[in-house]
Amino acid sequence: MRLAELSERSGVSTATIKYYLREGLLPPGERVTATQSEYNEDHLRRLRLVRALIQVGRVPVATAREVLGAVDDNALDMDERLGVAVGSLPHQAPGRPEEAEDPHVRAARETIDGLLAELGWHARPSYPAAESLVTAVATLRRLDYPCDVASLLPYGRLATELAVSDLDMISAIEAPVTQLEAAVALTVLYEPVLLSLRRMAHAEESRRRYSTGGEGGAPAKQAGPANG
Amino acid sequence: MRLAELSERSGVSTATIKYYLREGLLPPGERVTATQSEYNEDHLRRLRLVRALIQVGRVPVATAREVLGAVDDNALDMDERLGVAVGSLPHQAPGRPEEAEDPHVRAARETIDGLLAELGWHARPSYPAAESLVTAVATLRRLDYPCDVASLLPYGRLATELAVSDLDMISAIEAPVTQLEAAVALTVLYEPVLLSLRRMAHAEESRRRYSTGGEGGAPAKQAGPANG
Repeated sequence: MRLAELSERSGVSTATIKYYLREGLLPPGERVTATQSEYNEDHLRRLRLVRALIQVGRVPVATAREVLGAVDDNALDMDERLGVAVGSLPHQAPGRPEEAEDPHVRAARETIDGLLAELGWHARPSYPAAESLVTAVATLRRLDYPCDVASLLPYGRLATELAVSDLDMISAIEAPVTQLEAAVALTVLYEPVLLSLRRMAHAEESRRRYSTGGEGGAPAKQAGPANG
Repeated sequence: MRLAELSERSGVSTATIKYYLREGLLPPGERVTATQSEYNEDHLRRLRLVRALIQVGRVPVATAREVLGAVDDNALDMDERLGVAVGSLPHQAPGRPEEAEDPHVRAARETIDGLLAELGWHARPSYPAAESLVTAVATLRRLDYPCDVASLLPYGRLATELAVSDLDMISAIEAPVTQLEAAVALTVLYEPVLLSLRRMAHAEESRRRYSTGGEGGAPAKQAGPANG
């Protein structure tokens, strides 16, 4: 297909596609004349992934290039490619870099070590996700909110369940390169799904616990307050 | 305590505290002289919450004021206050507003209706979280990645489990206002925890599935590839 069709099918403007081509986020098409190139379904699929990374994942262009480089690197095995690609994704709330001597950061690292031991994980501490976790836990501790191994453990267990179900979904895809692309895309694209559902579940669960039943959406069994 | 001590104990600069006071995010202290006010533990706790919202949650000041207004509104019951406060929190990746006539958006709304029916939830569709979910699902569908009721259901179930464990943690806190503050803070502060752990779990699970065992961190039972 020509550039115009690639643009129409992807919903990405031709100017933006040209920019992605220049930045090496999209492999060049097959040149057919001095001014025209031919693109195929692989370009369309890759374009969708680039879109997901940049628009939904807010991934900077340089990082997207690094992630895609890992996806395409045939010298690495599947595990390494997935690890490098997903591991290179920046976390959307990186915050400031933490100082190692900050007592909250030290306490956070100890808590996380305890958590990983409980979960039996072998996390690579260089991943942005591992660093983001330190920042998040240190912030909770600094602000004096509960955050110990016991409060983190349900999150870790549920994250494992999510990863199993995500990778089952990815395994159902056929070609390995496409699997890698899907892994990167689904990592990014399901994050807002997860956060939205958690907030909706909060509202739902608090309604169940605290609703005084004024609104018609009351629970079926309307337990009267003990002090009524 | 005086402003200087409030600053020292919270780690927030006096200039920033004065800005929060002017913006109504922090109630005024008790005036002791023409130029000095006295602050108490409630100010310190509220300041921590404001910090969590603005620094970690990237909540705009106007929205933070709205969220805190709901926390403090004695005319509402606990469920409503929690619902309004958590419900007012913006989603960090709002994207563009979706057009109702977009077929992907229509399909996303249908998928979400199916999901909510399966989960037995009574979501208030006006919440930013519910709108963010529509955007996230529409994006997945637009990019042609799997996203139907079956793929969303594990996320919804796990979100419910998280909400139950979060609200158990919150119920352990004593005063209702503090519970509400904690609910808002934990909603925001545990989001990066959850996302970091999910990414780490992805790396862990993919290592378990795909590792060819080169790095010492190999799985105990080293299954050889069938085509070896």
